[in-house]
Amino acid sequence: MKKGKKMNKAKTEKFVYFFGAGKSDGNGKMKDLLGGKGANLAEMTNIGVPVPPGFTIITKVCNYFSAQGKVPTELNGQMRTALIKLEKIAEKKFGDVANPLLVSVRSGAKFSMPGMMDTILNLGLNDKTVEGLAELTNNARFAYDAYRRFIQMFGNVVLGIEKEVFEEILTHKKEILKIKLDIEMNETALKELVREFEETIKEKTKKTFPQDVYRQLEMARDAVFKSWNNPRAVTYRRLNKIADDLGTAVNVQAMVFGNMGNDCATGVGFTRNPATGEKVFYGEYLLNAQGEDVVAGIRTPRQIADLKKEMPKVFEQLKKITNRLEKDYKDVQDFEFTVEKNKLYMLQTRNGKRTAQAAVKIAVDMVKEKLIKKEEALTRLEPEQIDQLLHPIFDPKIKINAIVKGLPASPGAAVGKVVFTADEAAAVGDKEKVILVRTETCPDDIHGMDAAQGILTSRGGMTSHAAVVARGMGKCCVVGCEEVKVNEKKKELKIKDKTIKEGDWISLNGSTGEVILGKVATIEPKLSGEFGEFMKWADQIRKLKVRANADIPHDAQVARGFGAEGIGLCRTEHMFFAEDRLPMMQEMILADNENARRKALNKLLNLQKKDFKGLFKEMKGYPVTIRLLDPPLHEFLPKREELMKEAAVMKATGVDKKELEKKEKLLIRVEELHEVNPMLGHRGCRLGIVYPEITEMQVKAIVSAACELAKEKEKIIPEIMVPLVGHVNELKNQKELIKKVAQETMKSYGVKIKYMVGTMIEVPRAAVTANEIAQEAEFFSFGTNDLTQMGFGFSRDDAGKFIKIYIKDKILEEDPFQVLDQNGIGQLVKIGVEKGRKTKKDLKVGICGEHGGEPSSVIFCHNVGLNYVSCSPYRVPIARLAAAQAVIFGKKK
Amino acid sequence: MKKGKKMNKAKTEKFVYFFGAGKSDGNGKMKDLLGGKGANLAEMTNIGVPVPPGFTIITKVCNYFSAQGKVPTELNGQMRTALIKLEKIAEKKFGDVANPLLVSVRSGAKFSMPGMMDTILNLGLNDKTVEGLAELTNNARFAYDAYRRFIQMFGNVVLGIEKEVFEEILTHKKEILKIKLDIEMNETALKELVREFEETIKEKTKKTFPQDVYRQLEMARDAVFKSWNNPRAVTYRRLNKIADDLGTAVNVQAMVFGNMGNDCATGVGFTRNPATGEKVFYGEYLLNAQGEDVVAGIRTPRQIADLKKEMPKVFEQLKKITNRLEKDYKDVQDFEFTVEKNKLYMLQTRNGKRTAQAAVKIAVDMVKEKLIKKEEALTRLEPEQIDQLLHPIFDPKIKINAIVKGLPASPGAAVGKVVFTADEAAAVGDKEKVILVRTETCPDDIHGMDAAQGILTSRGGMTSHAAVVARGMGKCCVVGCEEVKVNEKKKELKIKDKTIKEGDWISLNGSTGEVILGKVATIEPKLSGEFGEFMKWADQIRKLKVRANADIPHDAQVARGFGAEGIGLCRTEHMFFAEDRLPMMQEMILADNENARRKALNKLLNLQKKDFKGLFKEMKGYPVTIRLLDPPLHEFLPKREELMKEAAVMKATGVDKKELEKKEKLLIRVEELHEVNPMLGHRGCRLGIVYPEITEMQVKAIVSAACELAKEKEKIIPEIMVPLVGHVNELKNQKELIKKVAQETMKSYGVKIKYMVGTMIEVPRAAVTANEIAQEAEFFSFGTNDLTQMGFGFSRDDAGKFIKIYIKDKILEEDPFQVLDQNGIGQLVKIGVEKGRKTKKDLKVGICGEHGGEPSSVIFCHNVGLNYVSCSPYRVPIARLAAAQAVIFGKKK
Repeated sequence: MKKGKKMNKAKTEKFVYFFGAGKSDGNGKMKDLLGGKGANLAEMTNIGVPVPPGFTIITKVCNYFSAQGKVPTELNGQMRTALIKLEKIAEKKFGDVANPLLVSVRSGAKFSMPGMMDTILNLGLNDKTVEGLAELTNNARFAYDAYRRFIQMFGNVVLGIEKEVFEEILTHKKEILKIKLDIEMNETALKELVREFEETIKEKTKKTFPQDVYRQLEMARDAVFKSWNNPRAVTYRRLNKIADDLGTAVNVQAMVFGNMGNDCATGVGFTRNPATGEKVFYGEYLLNAQGEDVVAGIRTPRQIADLKKEMPKVFEQLKKITNRLEKDYKDVQDFEFTVEKNKLYMLQTRNGKRTAQAAVKIAVDMVKEKLIKKEEALTRLEPEQIDQLLHPIFDPKIKINAIVKGLPASPGAAVGKVVFTADEAAAVGDKEKVILVRTETCPDDIHGMDAAQGILTSRGGMTSHAAVVARGMGKCCVVGCEEVKVNEKKKELKIKDKTIKEGDWISLNGSTGEVILGKVATIEPKLSGEFGEFMKWADQIRKLKVRANADIPHDAQVARGFGAEGIGLCRTEHMFFAEDRLPMMQEMILADNENARRKALNKLLNLQKKDFKGLFKEMKGYPVTIRLLDPPLHEFLPKREELMKEAAVMKATGVDKKELEKKEKLLIRVEELHEVNPMLGHRGCRLGIVYPEITEMQVKAIVSAACELAKEKEKIIPEIMVPLVGHVNELKNQKELIKKVAQETMKSYGVKIKYMVGTMIEVPRAAVTANEIAQEAEFFSFGTNDLTQMGFGFSRDDAGKFIKIYIKDKILEEDPFQVLDQNGIGQLVKIGVEKGRKTKKDLKVGICGEHGGEPSSVIFCHNVGLNYVSCSPYRVPIARLAAAQAVIFGKKK
Repeated sequence: MKKGKKMNKAKTEKFVYFFGAGKSDGNGKMKDLLGGKGANLAEMTNIGVPVPPGFTIITKVCNYFSAQGKVPTELNGQMRTALIKLEKIAEKKFGDVANPLLVSVRSGAKFSMPGMMDTILNLGLNDKTVEGLAELTNNARFAYDAYRRFIQMFGNVVLGIEKEVFEEILTHKKEILKIKLDIEMNETALKELVREFEETIKEKTKKTFPQDVYRQLEMARDAVFKSWNNPRAVTYRRLNKIADDLGTAVNVQAMVFGNMGNDCATGVGFTRNPATGEKVFYGEYLLNAQGEDVVAGIRTPRQIADLKKEMPKVFEQLKKITNRLEKDYKDVQDFEFTVEKNKLYMLQTRNGKRTAQAAVKIAVDMVKEKLIKKEEALTRLEPEQIDQLLHPIFDPKIKINAIVKGLPASPGAAVGKVVFTADEAAAVGDKEKVILVRTETCPDDIHGMDAAQGILTSRGGMTSHAAVVARGMGKCCVVGCEEVKVNEKKKELKIKDKTIKEGDWISLNGSTGEVILGKVATIEPKLSGEFGEFMKWADQIRKLKVRANADIPHDAQVARGFGAEGIGLCRTEHMFFAEDRLPMMQEMILADNENARRKALNKLLNLQKKDFKGLFKEMKGYPVTIRLLDPPLHEFLPKREELMKEAAVMKATGVDKKELEKKEKLLIRVEELHEVNPMLGHRGCRLGIVYPEITEMQVKAIVSAACELAKEKEKIIPEIMVPLVGHVNELKNQKELIKKVAQETMKSYGVKIKYMVGTMIEVPRAAVTANEIAQEAEFFSFGTNDLTQMGFGFSRDDAGKFIKIYIKDKILEEDPFQVLDQNGIGQLVKIGVEKGRKTKKDLKVGICGEHGGEPSSVIFCHNVGLNYVSCSPYRVPIARLAAAQAVIFGKKK
């Protein structure tokens, strides 16, 4: 609203930026104002790249439009002025019957949102100009094909008529004509189609199709602005963390035609392979086609190498231009071009999206080519993308029998049950692994793609919608697999003679394009080669240590493989849930007195000691932080509700009295331990304070394990961590006990080991009294999961329902359990660090909540001066890169 | 430990302070060092009051003793020096056979702890000096009686032999002699008793009774120090919030004897009536008795007025001295005296404990007498004591038939079931109302007295243990009711011909001493007269406003009566739990869709409007803060566990299918709403955000009520409060809705009213982001209950168990739900206030947690600059006084 009002005052504000004939009002740096596409068009024009002339309506207008529901009044005037300039350069006139200027109208936000917003081509055609175009090009078929496409797009995008309505008419027409492809339609058919489309529009909208080309342009422009807020664009922004108030620009550009005959072509490409990162000129094109045909994946396009043979001059020019662009932008370029009667036009260039694997290779290569510095290279990969490199690949030892091979659009391995619609994928995708199989995907499918393990399409090329979006998501994707026949209605697909039904398992190899029936075993990836080098650079620059949360030796091993520098959190309770131990735990809990409790604990002692020895061995020389028992005891007992029901039924049906008595006795203890809010109940250090014998047993196990290894000359640094401390006296109580038991244990082994006693900071009160707690603590570890629960008052088990609504309604930007709420919970962390260090200047402080592996949270941790983050093993490399980026971004400030 | 070590270094430290012959080493201000009794003895000596000479061992030695288990080595030497001085003044010699000096050894902490620690009298007697004393006094009976008392006390206090052992021997002796009273025993009997006591000691301790008088003194001194940490002293300190590290002094004083004949007496008294505050000389004495006889309540003593007749000179001297002391100390004096052969000795003076009623009267009177200033007067009542003045009294309209009348020891009315032991009272006292009936109480009974509604004893006077302690507790108490015959073993008591069994109801009137069989109806007290005047002074001085938490008109009315200046918290949900409304609420919750929900809500609308109108009318002109619905919806539905059991049983027993289906359907919805941690679940503003129609209905009801009253020309200022806000966007969301509905409602009534929209600050995140929240909030109200729950991570429903252990183990000093944890949760409040006021300088900030009525928390609220506190109606006067004291204490700093 504010923006809109401001604009009203600034009467002379420039809303329209022109580009053409080697000169632009803007330049490549003005992405905020012109959007990515507009800025690049301006830049290309400025550096002499052949670009069809046009103008960009700035992003601010989009915000004005969103707020006011209309554009600023001065805009139309500015557009007219720009159109006159455009007509001069194009030597055509907008709306002129004899020599009509046609334009495209495209969105273009600061950050690329492929396919999310609307585009209209061939605008400027009407019942009269179409005749002029036919005469001018001497190609009536072309002119009417252009017109029917325009009406179709305009009808859908601007007038809101469903695509299917036009598609049905088209299909019906082809059936009558007994033809299969659009291209087989002749002039007469296309003319009829135009008439039928126009009639349909009149019927549906109660208005005739607009013949005034200026009206067409205004309507199209507004439709693009409106599309900024369509649901799929909103979803895309949410998934990609793009701010809603950036707005989109609108680019109006003279049309060039790749579909005026075989001396015409249209294509897209990358300066390097966006899937693997290889330095090869890479792309696809179609002769005699409009750009959308390539991207939409309806016809499978040809490799760009073929263009060298078919249009050698154009190919050389294209290579030269794109090389220049890559050097200028210092990054891989993703470009679109059209050849109109052998003349090359660049329609777009932008930094290319790429897979994580490609991003790493390109970044490393560019450093070696001296195009960029190491620090710059480290920012070329979103830490989150590393996840894609860590996911399983097919076990190379297994012989794979691919039934068919498509295009390897996005690497990785995916195994799942076949589903045929995005809705179905979204509905079941969080419960089971699914592969979304479609003829082709469209922007409406994005939620299903997000939910699926992988995507398989029968149509489309490496730059089709499915391919581009899947790469962006880091999802395994195989496209253009033409032998796959999808029958969505019957919910089955046929590959050769095999029929695969919904729910059947298939496996995809996104790196090779192979499709395999059934489930293929996968293995963990290795972090070597370019990725290893890349991560080494990250390690050299980062200041934060990265540890892993690991409870068992296997996890510790994985974590070490991923570069963890210690264990930041070992949750000892996970050791008690094991089948062979639960009975002992229950015996302990059900004990009537301390002696009986001690007896049961004694049974657990040796098992715990073995656990710790295993962990310590994996983490030789690195610190291992062990948290004392944390969950409430009732978690180890049978469910209260079940017992209640069983007892009630036994009573009502009058069975075995002894059984009932036993059940009721158990129920009494379960009831005693039952809590209304277990999250805020008798857990954490409160257990160790009320039942010191539990702490004693655990400390004895930890210190014994360390002592035994010390005798084997292995250096172990156990860090004993007291959970859920809210008051310094709690820590004091437990620390005294820990020291006493540790002393006794070391004495009994005749060994002295180094160990530390510290605490979780996970209760808000602990954060605000951290100065007091630091008097007793040798280290702090922020438990941001619980700190978020208590700081927000959100029970993780219950809040899911309303957090979803909160995010939808923009009350929260992110789920605070996934991304640390820096503004609120982060402040508690900051207060805790500052107060803690006020008491102990060199206090070691870390974080072991799940935020420790989330990039923006890691950067926050660096900024508030933590010593380390600890996260799940698979997120260790992500945290390593994020920690490096934190240093780099810090320098840039 | 530290203190002990320090003392070892300070070789010359003075541990012993002498007083006697008109001169003291110390004075009345040295209570920290000398304890209350010691300082007062020094002071009295200095101003010429006749005090038996002696010396005080300082409190620091007690701490040393607690830490090291022994006294500093230099102490014995200092004591010898003091003893020599003492011998000189007393003209007797310690341990001398011919002319023995006897001393008392008494505890004396900074704050009086009546009867909690140990005392030994007649020390210095042994098998030889007793003979000397007999000769000297020419009274062998007296000497042996003194000796047997000494052995008895020493045996119990120093040697740890149970009192009952000696009592049994004594009783047995009297039975043989066929006498009833101790006083009837002759010299021979007493001599035998001494021998039997000595034999018993040898048998029990394997050592002979110590004959070395210096050894006696050292042992007695150590026993007093040890008694600082006996369980009843520890309990007393906890109840009275006395620090554990103050320590007790030990006072060694030459004995004077009130039991050397009928020219001797001993007594205690007050300069004003400690029960009513009346300015009358008040006290009791016994002729020919030792001090303990008066306090122990074994013989019922005589009124002090009688002393005027029996010892007119002594009486005049006593009155003069005590008047002087009252003027000097500017407070009521509680004194002890002994008359030895017509010579008056003051043994002790201290500020007297008094009932709340007396405290008010005395404070007001003293201001009128110009003895103290108003501000001083306001500090003479602990705010918590006001509670005693607000408690019910017997309905004066009811004719009371007292069965018997005792001494009115502590005023008020008490109704309860009879119990006979302190343990029983403590065991059931929190579940039902009990009256503790004892022959006499002793310090071991303190936990039972605390748990009982009132205390009735058959023995003892107005200064007996029961009377003093009950007054301190503000408990109704009737003592010395000799017609009450208690049979503890049979668990019954007889009054005249009536037998009353354990569990029977009785009623006590502590203001008249009446005992009534059965339950007598009680009524609310009135705040007028001196109390009214006192509270007016408090109101004049305080800066904090005091509001009440009230949900229904009746509570609001009570609150106004107690001086509430508005409602700080109206919990609207309490209106929904009413029997007639719960079904509508359930209908709303069980509705499948918004429409059905709205329909159910509509039914509630008019009822809510009526509620609010009632509240508004009671609070004419004052602000009324209404909190929108707060608890999770499942609280309004049947209990999940019950439904589960019922359904399981129905299924197992195969009854009516339709019923089962109905039950199962309900269970499904209950399960949907079930939460693992409801405290952190879908409640507070989260309800209003997900179900805006609930907020709409409530706002409509509030604003409609205000509009309708506005039409009746009543000024109403509703403050609509959004609960559980953690993020500014939550408040923003609800505020927009509230404003919209309020606007519409006012429009429909054609009335404009003033209203405010504010928020609870009860989520820790809200406190740390209060600057953001203040952008939307027109007021803050700290919900310190929830803030404590989330800040500590303590579920109020569950934490009781371990908080008890925490307090016992000194991990926490107080239950943070009763007394605001200033150090932790208080910091969140402080941060919230500061940040909120940074955004809005004049932001109105209050507190509506239960801490709003707890005196130390009220003082904290004043200090952090809140505008008001809100508490339950009965605590409003307490908060008013605490708020005044906050100002007074603030000035003193």
